[in-house]
Parts: sequence; structure tokens; C-alpha cells
Amino acid sequence: MARAGRRPGQTETREQILTAARAQFAALGYDGATIRGIAAEASVNPALVHHFFGTKEQVFVAAMQLPVDPALMVPTLLDGPRAQFGERMVRFFLTVWGNPDTREPFLALMRSVMSNEQAVRMLRQFISRTVLAKVADGLGVPRLRMAAAASHLIGLAIVRYIVAVEPLASADDDEIVALVGPVVQHYVDG
Amino acid sequence: MARAGRRPGQTETREQILTAARAQFAALGYDGATIRGIAAEASVNPALVHHFFGTKEQVFVAAMQLPVDPALMVPTLLDGPRAQFGERMVRFFLTVWGNPDTREPFLALMRSVMSNEQAVRMLRQFISRTVLAKVADGLGVPRLRMAAAASHLIGLAIVRYIVAVEPLASADDDEIVALVGPVVQHYVDG
Repeated sequence: MARAGRRPGQTETREQILTAARAQFAALGYDGATIRGIAAEASVNPALVHHFFGTKEQVFVAAMQLPVDPALMVPTLLDGPRAQFGERMVRFFLTVWGNPDTREPFLALMRSVMSNEQAVRMLRQFISRTVLAKVADGLGVPRLRMAAAASHLIGLAIVRYIVAVEPLASADDDEIVALVGPVVQHYVDG
Repeated sequence: MARAGRRPGQTETREQILTAARAQFAALGYDGATIRGIAAEASVNPALVHHFFGTKEQVFVAAMQLPVDPALMVPTLLDGPRAQFGERMVRFFLTVWGNPDTREPFLALMRSVMSNEQAVRMLRQFISRTVLAKVADGLGVPRLRMAAAASHLIGLAIVRYIVAVEPLASADDDEIVALVGPVVQHYVDG
């Protein structure tokens, strides 16, 4: 029996989809979840999920409140001379982590990764598919080397911005780029 | 008025000291806490703290249940040819993190660092004083370079063992040592 009452507003529908997406990603992982399944869980038409968010990747970015959209990040990293990739990648990380507005969501994400097996699985699949594979393949670099380079920047962010170990915490960005950029470049050049 | 009853056993006294130590380190940081202050908080003689644990560093290791004692770690890292330092350091980290018995306490520590400002402060001071400074000075390497190298290994541990991103997760130790050892060595050689 149809209930009387106003039709849910756009904001409400969006939230409904995001809640369903979080549940589906948690239950099935990034790889296992589908737009169709998310739509079913949210009791909406799949076309509406596409309409609001676009691809599954974009649904994930919105559902997890990721501060960085890989669809923007990957082209930014790949755009420019290959010989300056290391420098570009370090500067990109410093910009994202240096800004408290984007650092906080990353921190929240890392906390959940440290304590939640489902969060780990989602994030692992998402990073592998949407960032690591694309950057490695875009540069023609083996994924192992790319993963090693990325791990360096994640550790750098933790030690510089969270644990704040000196002199890494107060070194300026240019100094860090000069120090770490060539190392990332070394992973790319092999 | 003295209470009648049995004298507390050694285990009880140890626990009392460790509880006091955790409170003092949390309140005053690693640098600010003293054996004397810990003894006072535990209502025991400072000589007893020395007797049970030794130095403040060792009290910290016991109180925080650190899986690795820097007093053993630092000589292990420094002992051997300087040209093989990178390889030694990478292998040391892989051994510690590859063993679930030592990995779990590290994970617990990292979780508290991600969410607890007091834990961050204690750990920052402890790492700076007892590990970073000693290894950097022992090798004659600027601390910034040493901190950058250490940050790489922390990120490597997170990406390999916690997020478990492939192919980094299933690569064997020798492959990782061959890949990352020269990078750590680069930080040492300048």
C-alpha cells in the first residue's frame, strides 16, 4: 500500500544512496559492490545512482568522504615530464596532507584502516584499481616499484604530520621535495 | 596508621610502577617524566624502579609494551658495514613486522597514535631521543635524512602488512630488501 506524504527530496535520496553504498562496499568490498546492488539496497533506480554520482569509483569517493578524487589525482600525477614525476608526486602529497581540511578526512580513514578489516579490504581494492594500477601502467612502471614509492609517501605523511618527528615536521615543502623527489623518481626509472 | 596485611608481591609492585609510569609519561611526555616522579606516583622508592626496570628508557619500553627495545635495536642496526646499513635496516623492519607476535603490539601502538594526542607526544619524544638521534649520530647522517628513511619503512610496513596492497603484500623479503635497501642506503650516503 502506497504511503501518503511528500516525495523525498534530493538531499534525502543522496544520503539514502550513500548509506546503501557504505553498507554494500563494507559487505562486498570495492570489487564486489555494484551500482545495481547499491541502488537495490537504497530502493532507487540504478539510473538515479549514475545521475547523482557517475561511476562506482565516484560513488565510493562520496560514500567514504575521500578528500581526494583519484579521477582528478591520477591525471594530475601523470600530466608533465616523466623525469619530474617524483617531484610532482611528493608535492601533491605535501599539498594534500599539509592542508588540515584534507588531512583530517585522511586521518579518519587511516584510523578506520588500523582497526577495521572491512575498511582495509575496501580501501585496498579501491587503491589498487583506481590509483596504483593506473599510475603504474600510465608510466610503464612495475606495480611493485610504484607501490614501494607510494608507501614512502604514506610513511612520510604519518611521520611528518601525525607523529611530527623533527626535523621532518618543520622542514619546508621545498626541502622535502628536494630530498624525497629523487627517491620516488628512482622507483619510476628503475 | 599502618594497615595489617601481607606485603605486596613483586608482580604487584611491578604492575603498580608500570601503571604509574603510564600516567606520568602521558601527563608529562617522555622527556618530562622522571624515575623519581614515577616512583612517587607509585609510592615506592626510586631505587626499586631502577631495580625492576633499569633506565627511564627501559621503563617506557615496559610500560608501553613496545615489541622492540631500542637499546637492542640501535646496536643491531649500527653493527656491520656502513655500506650495508640500508639492507640491514630494511631486513630488521621486515623481521619485526613479519612476525605477528611483534606486529600486533606495533599495530596497537599505531592505533593509539592515530587517535590520541598524548600517545603521539610520548612516542615522538621517545623515538627522537632513543632511536632516531642515536642511529643518525652513530652513522654521521643528518637527522632529516634519517627520519626520511625511517618514514619510508613505516609506510612500507603499513602498505605491506596492514593495507596489504599487492604486489607489495606477497613479495618475498629478499625482493623487498633488494628494492628498498638501496633507497635507505641513498639517504645514508647523501
